Amino acid sequence: MFETGFLHGGDYNPEQWIREPAILAKDIEYFKKAKINAVTLGVFSWAVLEPCEGEYHIEWLQLIIDKLYKNGIRTILATPSAARPKWLSDKYPEVLRVNENRRRNLFGARHNHCYTSPVYREKIAHINTLLAKTFSENPSILMWHISNEYGGECHCPLCQEAFRDWLKTQYQSIDELNDKWATTFWSHTYQSFSQIESPSSLGEKAVHGLNLAWRRFVTHQTTDFAKHEINVLRENGCTQPTTANLMYDFTDINYDILAEAIDVVSWDTYPLWHKTKDIIIANDTGFYHDYMRCLKDKPFILMESCPTSTNWQGISKLKKPGLLENASLHAIAHGADSVLYFQMRQSRGSSEKFHGAVIDHYGGCDTRVFKEVAQTGVDLEKLSEIAGSRTNSKVAIIYDVENRWGIEDSQGPRNDGMFYPELLKKSYRAFKKKGLNVDIISQNGNIENYNVVVAPMLYMLRGEFENKIKAYVQTGGTLIMTYWSGVVDNDDRCYLGGTPHGLNEVLGLRSQEIDALYDDESNFFVPVSTSLFGKNYTCKNLCELVEVTTGEVLMRYGTDFYKGFPAVTKNTYGKGSAYYICADVEESFYDELYSMVLKELSINGPVQGDIPASIEVNTRHDGEMEYVFIQNFANEIVDISKLSIDGILLIGENTKQLKAYETIVLKVTKV
Amino acid sequence: MFETGFLHGGDYNPEQWIREPAILAKDIEYFKKAKINAVTLGVFSWAVLEPCEGEYHIEWLQLIIDKLYKNGIRTILATPSAARPKWLSDKYPEVLRVNENRRRNLFGARHNHCYTSPVYREKIAHINTLLAKTFSENPSILMWHISNEYGGECHCPLCQEAFRDWLKTQYQSIDELNDKWATTFWSHTYQSFSQIESPSSLGEKAVHGLNLAWRRFVTHQTTDFAKHEINVLRENGCTQPTTANLMYDFTDINYDILAEAIDVVSWDTYPLWHKTKDIIIANDTGFYHDYMRCLKDKPFILMESCPTSTNWQGISKLKKPGLLENASLHAIAHGADSVLYFQMRQSRGSSEKFHGAVIDHYGGCDTRVFKEVAQTGVDLEKLSEIAGSRTNSKVAIIYDVENRWGIEDSQGPRNDGMFYPELLKKSYRAFKKKGLNVDIISQNGNIENYNVVVAPMLYMLRGEFENKIKAYVQTGGTLIMTYWSGVVDNDDRCYLGGTPHGLNEVLGLRSQEIDALYDDESNFFVPVSTSLFGKNYTCKNLCELVEVTTGEVLMRYGTDFYKGFPAVTKNTYGKGSAYYICADVEESFYDELYSMVLKELSINGPVQGDIPASIEVNTRHDGEMEYVFIQNFANEIVDISKLSIDGILLIGENTKQLKAYETIVLKVTKV
Amino acid sequence: MFETGFLHGGDYNPEQWIREPAILAKDIEYFKKAKINAVTLGVFSWAVLEPCEGEYHIEWLQLIIDKLYKNGIRTILATPSAARPKWLSDKYPEVLRVNENRRRNLFGARHNHCYTSPVYREKIAHINTLLAKTFSENPSILMWHISNEYGGECHCPLCQEAFRDWLKTQYQSIDELNDKWATTFWSHTYQSFSQIESPSSLGEKAVHGLNLAWRRFVTHQTTDFAKHEINVLRENGCTQPTTANLMYDFTDINYDILAEAIDVVSWDTYPLWHKTKDIIIANDTGFYHDYMRCLKDKPFILMESCPTSTNWQGISKLKKPGLLENASLHAIAHGADSVLYFQMRQSRGSSEKFHGAVIDHYGGCDTRVFKEVAQTGVDLEKLSEIAGSRTNSKVAIIYDVENRWGIEDSQGPRNDGMFYPELLKKSYRAFKKKGLNVDIISQNGNIENYNVVVAPMLYMLRGEFENKIKAYVQTGGTLIMTYWSGVVDNDDRCYLGGTPHGLNEVLGLRSQEIDALYDDESNFFVPVSTSLFGKNYTCKNLCELVEVTTGEVLMRYGTDFYKGFPAVTKNTYGKGSAYYICADVEESFYDELYSMVLKELSINGPVQGDIPASIEVNTRHDGEMEYVFIQNFANEIVDISKLSIDGILLIGENTKQLKAYETIVLKVTKV
Repeated sequence: MFETGFLHGGDYNPEQWIREPAILAKDIEYFKKAKINAVTLGVFSWAVLEPCEGEYHIEWLQLIIDKLYKNGIRTILATPSAARPKWLSDKYPEVLRVNENRRRNLFGARHNHCYTSPVYREKIAHINTLLAKTFSENPSILMWHISNEYGGECHCPLCQEAFRDWLKTQYQSIDELNDKWATTFWSHTYQSFSQIESPSSLGEKAVHGLNLAWRRFVTHQTTDFAKHEINVLRENGCTQPTTANLMYDFTDINYDILAEAIDVVSWDTYPLWHKTKDIIIANDTGFYHDYMRCLKDKPFILMESCPTSTNWQGISKLKKPGLLENASLHAIAHGADSVLYFQMRQSRGSSEKFHGAVIDHYGGCDTRVFKEVAQTGVDLEKLSEIAGSRTNSKVAIIYDVENRWGIEDSQGPRNDGMFYPELLKKSYRAFKKKGLNVDIISQNGNIENYNVVVAPMLYMLRGEFENKIKAYVQTGGTLIMTYWSGVVDNDDRCYLGGTPHGLNEVLGLRSQEIDALYDDESNFFVPVSTSLFGKNYTCKNLCELVEVTTGEVLMRYGTDFYKGFPAVTKNTYGKGSAYYICADVEESFYDELYSMVLKELSINGPVQGDIPASIEVNTRHDGEMEYVFIQNFANEIVDISKLSIDGILLIGENTKQLKAYETIVLKVTKV
Repeated sequence: MFETGFLHGGDYNPEQWIREPAILAKDIEYFKKAKINAVTLGVFSWAVLEPCEGEYHIEWLQLIIDKLYKNGIRTILATPSAARPKWLSDKYPEVLRVNENRRRNLFGARHNHCYTSPVYREKIAHINTLLAKTFSENPSILMWHISNEYGGECHCPLCQEAFRDWLKTQYQSIDELNDKWATTFWSHTYQSFSQIESPSSLGEKAVHGLNLAWRRFVTHQTTDFAKHEINVLRENGCTQPTTANLMYDFTDINYDILAEAIDVVSWDTYPLWHKTKDIIIANDTGFYHDYMRCLKDKPFILMESCPTSTNWQGISKLKKPGLLENASLHAIAHGADSVLYFQMRQSRGSSEKFHGAVIDHYGGCDTRVFKEVAQTGVDLEKLSEIAGSRTNSKVAIIYDVENRWGIEDSQGPRNDGMFYPELLKKSYRAFKKKGLNVDIISQNGNIENYNVVVAPMLYMLRGEFENKIKAYVQTGGTLIMTYWSGVVDNDDRCYLGGTPHGLNEVLGLRSQEIDALYDDESNFFVPVSTSLFGKNYTCKNLCELVEVTTGEVLMRYGTDFYKGFPAVTKNTYGKGSAYYICADVEESFYDELYSMVLKELSINGPVQGDIPASIEVNTRHDGEMEYVFIQNFANEIVDISKLSIDGILLIGENTKQLKAYETIVLKVTKV
Repeated sequence: MFETGFLHGGDYNPEQWIREPAILAKDIEYFKKAKINAVTLGVFSWAVLEPCEGEYHIEWLQLIIDKLYKNGIRTILATPSAARPKWLSDKYPEVLRVNENRRRNLFGARHNHCYTSPVYREKIAHINTLLAKTFSENPSILMWHISNEYGGECHCPLCQEAFRDWLKTQYQSIDELNDKWATTFWSHTYQSFSQIESPSSLGEKAVHGLNLAWRRFVTHQTTDFAKHEINVLRENGCTQPTTANLMYDFTDINYDILAEAIDVVSWDTYPLWHKTKDIIIANDTGFYHDYMRCLKDKPFILMESCPTSTNWQGISKLKKPGLLENASLHAIAHGADSVLYFQMRQSRGSSEKFHGAVIDHYGGCDTRVFKEVAQTGVDLEKLSEIAGSRTNSKVAIIYDVENRWGIEDSQGPRNDGMFYPELLKKSYRAFKKKGLNVDIISQNGNIENYNVVVAPMLYMLRGEFENKIKAYVQTGGTLIMTYWSGVVDNDDRCYLGGTPHGLNEVLGLRSQEIDALYDDESNFFVPVSTSLFGKNYTCKNLCELVEVTTGEVLMRYGTDFYKGFPAVTKNTYGKGSAYYICADVEESFYDELYSMVLKELSINGPVQGDIPASIEVNTRHDGEMEYVFIQNFANEIVDISKLSIDGILLIGENTKQLKAYETIVLKVTKV
């Protein structure tokens, strides 16, 4: 993506040290030692840029950017909208958010402004204009970093009005809205759009259509705000790409929509390393790397990661030696074109004063953390030819945030836990154990080119995707679907006439009932024939009862009154196959299922042989070459001699065993 | 109660499908298949009946009621006050409740209106008048269903004023109120009634007299609102009986008072079947059936029950095959004259879209649930001669909601759990294991006709009941009382001079101290002589230390510094006996105690022999015949051959063993 | 302190019984039986003293005080500010507190008034003036009890303004404040003091400098209010000493500052006796006795203690026989000059109606509790020569409330638990097991006279204390310091350049990193040589990684990547020694460490031989004599024959064994 190869650097706040030139000088000296080539400036700098209304100070920023540039370090420049100065909310209280209980916040924290407020939009336009005019032609600027970690919502009168206007664009008439939202229930019929209020625990929280519409509106309004910020830059001559930093497992807004407004996806990753087995954490993080990459189907930016322990998690665990680099290269392996840290120098006070940093309060470069950062810089240079290369996946998992909103708001069948994210990870991990790249896409994605598409718990099945699935299987695709799919439509209203809606023929079955199990209950799957599956598998939480029409039953329930009912089925539809998993079965079932499916489809990963449990394998490719990343997430030596791998080692020296937390990267001619 | 025998049907919301005549036609076809003879209409229909202020639409309701009637289905017609249209709260915000923190709700949910608001009372009067005038002489109307599940409270200025006015009727003067409420404590003395405010966690929550008065006022005001609704119906010519649907373990209001305002008690039951042993759940549900029956000492209506899983519980568990009918007949066994479901057809959207229904989203009548409902309809017809028959109990347990308010508000002796409801159930289950009918009554009830009266933890002992107890034992009754009784008076003020207040002579003892045990502590009861009790029993939570005067000690504590102190005593008073249980002892103690007591009094249940653990036995009777219900709450066959039972089998075929979840009903000549 | 010897009595509320002269007469009769010589009057009496604005009634109080005095009972007279009458908050709402969410409270509860409100200060001045004028020369008045349990905070506009004014006195300029608070972070720079608002979860809660300043302001304002109350008394001729009753583990305000405003420290103690081993609870309570004594370095008053169970704890556990006296004498052993109870007679109603009392609702003097109180009265008379004597400690532990505020607000390194109080108790208990008196002091204390000073987790190290430590060790003192010390300065801003700040030379090391462990993780300490430490010790929660310069390593970590890193070090600095403990190690480590250290310094306790686990030993002394208290906190006989103790037994009869919960007191000639 960048002519410089991989970016290496992170968030830098020189404004905190503006009166200490010795420290600023030391920073640059250290950055060079650590092969830092990019820093993010300006996040949260508004109060320094505009200390009083209309009084701008930008010279300090120019000086620093120039000085960095002269030292080979380029800048990702942020717009400062994520936190506003005190004078702004004092003078214009409308910029402060109103919470769902209709209480306006006081000044404080960050991410605390109304996305609708015309005043806020005007003020950010002024400051963005200043930044744009100053830096639009400055060669040091790599990218524009729009705001910071967009999220949250506002229920102020301005947002209420905007919500109503947006609803009018979504529904032809109030009658249509009433029908789609089923407002007759509990006498909630609206007579006009003007009667509608956003969801509130002081008022209405149980009209699912309203809740869903509100979430969509919040996404719309946040994206509209981001577009407003970007437009100001573009109108003032900026041509550099834009990004916004997204977050882990964040569902306030639908990133599908926000991603359309920016040029490059970036995200902030703070895994709880060492909390459980690190390979589990690596897989979980990898899932989100893949999700971020697929948002725009191209390399993404790792915008924030912590060089050591974070301060805001329950336990500020140190990263064990080697993990910093391993986790950094893990992002590269999944398609990142950068390793950026939060933060370059630790702040002296306030909320994140103990957040890990490249340079800590002690201030030396002889620390363990600094040395590991510097080593990572060295290795990133060795890998620089990989920058910009792409990812190819033969399998895809459908993860749809709107579907998740629906599941979490559904009230039944299991308010004590539906385990949708956990279910996604079961398939994901089963594929990763086989060394496959995986794409994570929503119902908006195209599925026709995958060999296997997995659609777990696709509760909210939108009409277009129903059609995509039919066409996909008809023309030879392999679909894996689970229980609790095709239940509600695009307005979160139940389908009538049998579920999974529209797919009864594709799957060869109809769902009859769904049983929720108490936490201490379980059932199990029994193979119809041991030539199909080798053993029983335990299932928990949710067990669907289906009747098959054309479907073949592969496994059956082992107990309860639905003993003998189908538990796993397979149906041939057109040229393809559709599997249906009726219950929340243990992960090892998916290992066996996918072994069978992949074998049938002759899909192989980049390495031969069984991959040891702590190893993750990923590939990137350019037109000619494939780059194979093999990473050890155990804190001990692991034997990989049984994996037949061949190629040129770009980093690492040994293809027979990996050291604790070691990564090796091989370059192989693409077949 | 009804000439038709038992009612079979439930809540029906045709207004949700008003544009789909095919579905409405299908409903009636299916209802007839399932022997449905009654439906509840109009709950939550206000927005359809009066979509704009003063614009009424009632024709649709007339048409549906007539059509149902022509098909043999009668209507329980609801007043729509439980949820109001949006226009009403938009135009008259005073109808919205104000919570204890003095925050007015927004529109939303249901059960959300001020019971005091003159506007709300006026608006409901208009709509009730319309309904009354339209249907007062319509033969299809079985009953009026007043509002829905009355509950909650409002702290608005109108309610504050009404509270003060009500207090003036309860206390002669502010001095008397201050004295009764002990307001000198913490300088809370009031100078006038106008200074009084309802309890609030932002203000005062610890003046027990105030809290108790507020709860009584809420009951008063809710009942007054119900009376207002009923008066409108009566003034407009309605002569059908009225009901209000009550709830499980609901203590917002004192149902003793509300029940006086209506003609028939009905209630909504949603047990957590299969969460633990089903016999435990059946006993627990039976306790509330008995409580509801005793509120007016006559058959009650089972107004809502779920044909399969509910959606609002933590786990939406399917009812296992057979349980739907078994649970339905369990209500009949305890004195219900109906089996009604929520709901006839599942709604497509909103909060309860996944609540079980007779007809689900799939829409067929070939479902497991529909077939079980239809079978229940068949069996209810076989039992129809039982409708209207009564229940006779020789034993009564005192369950007093005001006492419960007092216990829960007491601050000490065990804020981490007093276990009052659990204590009630220990006696209740001990009696049910012996096959006895049990009455559940408050201190307002008459006790003179029972052989045994159990008064567990009667903390708030009102003066009149103290006198009833004295007379009852004096004239030969058997009283079982426990620790923590007779502690406070009718204003929640401590009695002086020794407790249990007024009953020291009846019981032959005085309580000295009460020890609370940590959760991991226990003590035990040791028999004074093994001719009295056969073994030791464990006790927990609360251990009272008493000194006996005339009482005989039957068991003593086994450990701690009060080892050897009395644990169970018996006193002869007049012609009767009074037992006192000093601590929270395990349930099996009550099994042994009641075996002894019942034997002494020669009280037998309707069956001979030991009743198996999963079986519940109940009887109803008319002038001549007794109907014995024997129900198996195990999911397996149970041998009942050792119970000597004889009579005509109305349903069931085998008096030697019961199938899983089977009910048999015998008709025997009353002795 | 008082010519009468020890005080014996407690809180007495005759105003609750003012219409019942028989009860008031009975009280005095009983008080004399129990050797009561002092009661506290007037707490919460405002509504009786001034039922309407400006209408005063004080005759009843005069009468009671006189009558008590004639019966040998003196009065501790309270100002009534802790709860105000209803009329006061009705007429002047400004007196009601505003919570951090800027919501004004309603009338209710207690401790609910704004400390800033001029109206409240004026009203309390009037009533205090009345009390002062009436009782300034009354010989019955022992002390003035200022308000009750000061605490809490108010965020009203008056307090906001006072906060800003106070900030101006603390910081030279807004620039200095911004610098100290590091407000550049997240764009929080203030342009003027007028922009500052108190912390709120609706606004700003994460600027640590602001949070710390707010806590200091709350202490300042509360103390200022107390001074205002006292000034009124002094201006009206009162010369008796003043006290304010403090609380257990209470950190709303810094008692160091409040204690300066009063003459005598008193406190209220409500241990959870019997919840775990009573010796643990005794040690924990002893820690706070010592803390209270050290606030003014002289005998303190035990102002409240419960004769039996309290009502507001989760479990109202009875005190087992003997414990009442044992716990009472435990306070005396630690330096109290009184045994006072809450309460003399139980109230009939309201929040604390079930709080234990000397006279309960039954009302007799033949109760177990009354008899134990009376016996305590007898024994206190036997010990009266001890009253006024002092405590001498050779060791001190630094417990600093401001440091605790800092630790609890720090956000990292272990938000799930830092265990600062637990860490303090590990050293404390290790010393108590050796029979030593311990002083508990803050950074304001003088340390030069102690043989050993322990500074656990001294995170917020103020500059002056840094200097005191240097001088202390330099001149021969022994310092024990732990991990996470010297991290932030007096404004909660991180020190740069290496920690523990300023003490690297004293300790001979620098801290590099700190690792937080998950709850299920641990590491362990391994002795460098078994001649130093006899075994390994387990550590948890926090493990600091240090590099030594001049320090000697005594123990090393046993596992993880920092296996072999120093875990315990010792450094010689000047004439003294400084130990550093790197991790949260188990208590038995301190037992061994202090054995070593005390042996080296030849420090012995008052008894020889190993003290049994359930025994606590304390001493008091006057010029000539030492009084040794030996107390058994086990509910069983304990052999103490191996302790070589000698002296005159003032209470108790046997120096070879102690009965359950027995105290013996010996008088020995001081050496």
